[in-house]
Amino acid sequence: MVAYTQLKDFLTDIFESIGCSKADAVTTANVLLAAELRNINSHGLIRVKDYYNLWKQGRLNPTPNIEIVHETPSTAVVDGDNGLGMLVGLKAMQIAMDKAEKVGTGWVSVRNSNHFGIAGYYTMQALKRDMIGMAMTNANPLVAPTFSTDKLLGTNPISVAIPAGNEAPFVADFATTPIARGKLEVMHKKGLKAPDGFVQDKYGESSNDPNILTEGGAILPLGGDYVHGSHKGYCLGAIVDIFSAVLSGANFGPYVPPSVAYLPVLPDLPGIGTGHFFGAMRIDGFQPADEFKKYMDLWIRTFKEATPAKGQNRVFVPGEPEREWEAIRMKEGIPVLDRVKEELSLIAKELNIKMSF
Amino acid sequence: MVAYTQLKDFLTDIFESIGCSKADAVTTANVLLAAELRNINSHGLIRVKDYYNLWKQGRLNPTPNIEIVHETPSTAVVDGDNGLGMLVGLKAMQIAMDKAEKVGTGWVSVRNSNHFGIAGYYTMQALKRDMIGMAMTNANPLVAPTFSTDKLLGTNPISVAIPAGNEAPFVADFATTPIARGKLEVMHKKGLKAPDGFVQDKYGESSNDPNILTEGGAILPLGGDYVHGSHKGYCLGAIVDIFSAVLSGANFGPYVPPSVAYLPVLPDLPGIGTGHFFGAMRIDGFQPADEFKKYMDLWIRTFKEATPAKGQNRVFVPGEPEREWEAIRMKEGIPVLDRVKEELSLIAKELNIKMSF
Repeated sequence: MVAYTQLKDFLTDIFESIGCSKADAVTTANVLLAAELRNINSHGLIRVKDYYNLWKQGRLNPTPNIEIVHETPSTAVVDGDNGLGMLVGLKAMQIAMDKAEKVGTGWVSVRNSNHFGIAGYYTMQALKRDMIGMAMTNANPLVAPTFSTDKLLGTNPISVAIPAGNEAPFVADFATTPIARGKLEVMHKKGLKAPDGFVQDKYGESSNDPNILTEGGAILPLGGDYVHGSHKGYCLGAIVDIFSAVLSGANFGPYVPPSVAYLPVLPDLPGIGTGHFFGAMRIDGFQPADEFKKYMDLWIRTFKEATPAKGQNRVFVPGEPEREWEAIRMKEGIPVLDRVKEELSLIAKELNIKMSF
Repeated sequence: MVAYTQLKDFLTDIFESIGCSKADAVTTANVLLAAELRNINSHGLIRVKDYYNLWKQGRLNPTPNIEIVHETPSTAVVDGDNGLGMLVGLKAMQIAMDKAEKVGTGWVSVRNSNHFGIAGYYTMQALKRDMIGMAMTNANPLVAPTFSTDKLLGTNPISVAIPAGNEAPFVADFATTPIARGKLEVMHKKGLKAPDGFVQDKYGESSNDPNILTEGGAILPLGGDYVHGSHKGYCLGAIVDIFSAVLSGANFGPYVPPSVAYLPVLPDLPGIGTGHFFGAMRIDGFQPADEFKKYMDLWIRTFKEATPAKGQNRVFVPGEPEREWEAIRMKEGIPVLDRVKEELSLIAKELNIKMSF
């Protein structure tokens, strides 16, 4: 276990060393560690090596000039100038909230960005301002649409955060697939089979091989197969892709640039960088804020107090498990895998940074 | 097969006879028949009996005064005055689009409404105005959240329609569950088993009995079980419920009033009627409209031309199958089940309307 502050200082040092301003380095560390605290470690420390290697290859701009390129009172397209997704995402979310402040809601589509970590980090910014936050992003193509063998979509996550009164807020943050690539890798390493409905082989037939992606296979959309509604998961992933990329002019679906340095960028891309989409809605654009919060508290209590199924202890409201992890890890520290520690130690050596864990 | 125009005249007569204005009767007929044309007959003629019986019981207002009760430049809450969901929905969508015209986007949450038919009808209105349309509604509680036995959510559909240039538009319209109640009834009548991942029994354990809802069972959220991501389907259904009801002050989840007359309204409801949520975004709030459409055409062609899986002929873009059905049924007529014909004939007799099919 490593203390949160220790990791935060270390990550801040890394991002300052690659050229970020102090403030930007802190922001990037904050977003990555929010993932670790919330037990979404697929989006935390494990990504530092990827960002670092992309930077080394000149594929990431540490001092981006993030700017609005098109706007109306409630909308904007932001160009991220190929910056770290965290910096671009936070700035875009800020713009969405500032627009909401003025006209009730704000909606920002982003191009020329990169991997932005957990979507929930951005939506939770809205809570402090009594707003509902929305965030989504497209991602590297791993997912085949229903009835196809081509990998045309990413795991394209959606997050929605909704403020409450006395209850803790509602924070949903989920991929539009049954599973992320990281979990398939874990299954493969443990010699486990993937359950039905996770992946297909290169012919589009159901597979239980967690390593099938390396042999032309694909992840399935949420729902799994057509009978179980995979066309609905496909719709969701498609909507995320279009809002993130077609609205902004970023690369869509199969053209999303790799978020890892060992894969090359495709030539002749139709758009610019990776795309995201952010939204903010003032709750008092609909109801007096106090009334909304009281009613939202009732909603949350109704679901929290629902009867658990046989063998279960409780029913969760979206965001509860992550919030509980956060409290534990702030107190007890964050577990760092040996493999990740080695990666970080190598980066520290190259950048001549002290690593104290 | 009955011709579209014949059904339209007949339905218009019915809704005029229960007190709707001519224009409102035509609108209601249009929305119901759009469902039939698009092969979503669970939301078409089969519903006329329900609306009629609710009206007979005084539970539906044929001449509602639909009005905005709260607003900002880009948001509004609309009170539907207990009118037919079609009339309330169309008015609310209109308000969302008018707001988008002025400030880029418009977002309307609705209370005191009723069953509104297919969500896709409303979102497709936006296409004519070069806008992206969004619509969702909460619905009668049939779905249990992950890990619970309580039916706290409806099948809560989401529709998103996105304009294109030379290609036909993208129109997604899907429930946030693997299956609708209607399909379970069909399975039960045919003596078929429900596939895994559709329903659970009263203890929350997996079931294959399509009739299990009558014995305390529930429909599962999209994903089916936790392993396959049902918590993601639960998040989606919850977001639809909160946007439709908590934002507007309608009844949420377990309190949504029945859309059928044979079930009583619960006493002491926390909100007012059924809730919906509508959104409209001008595409030129993000890009020059022509550029967006050209890029959207490329998106659509990329997915249409994807390699089909073994045993499949083609990959669909959301909205394609429904559009093809529409063309066929406009030409060949709409099939009307004997049971539905009998229901309609009874209503015609009671209202003293001529029925010519």
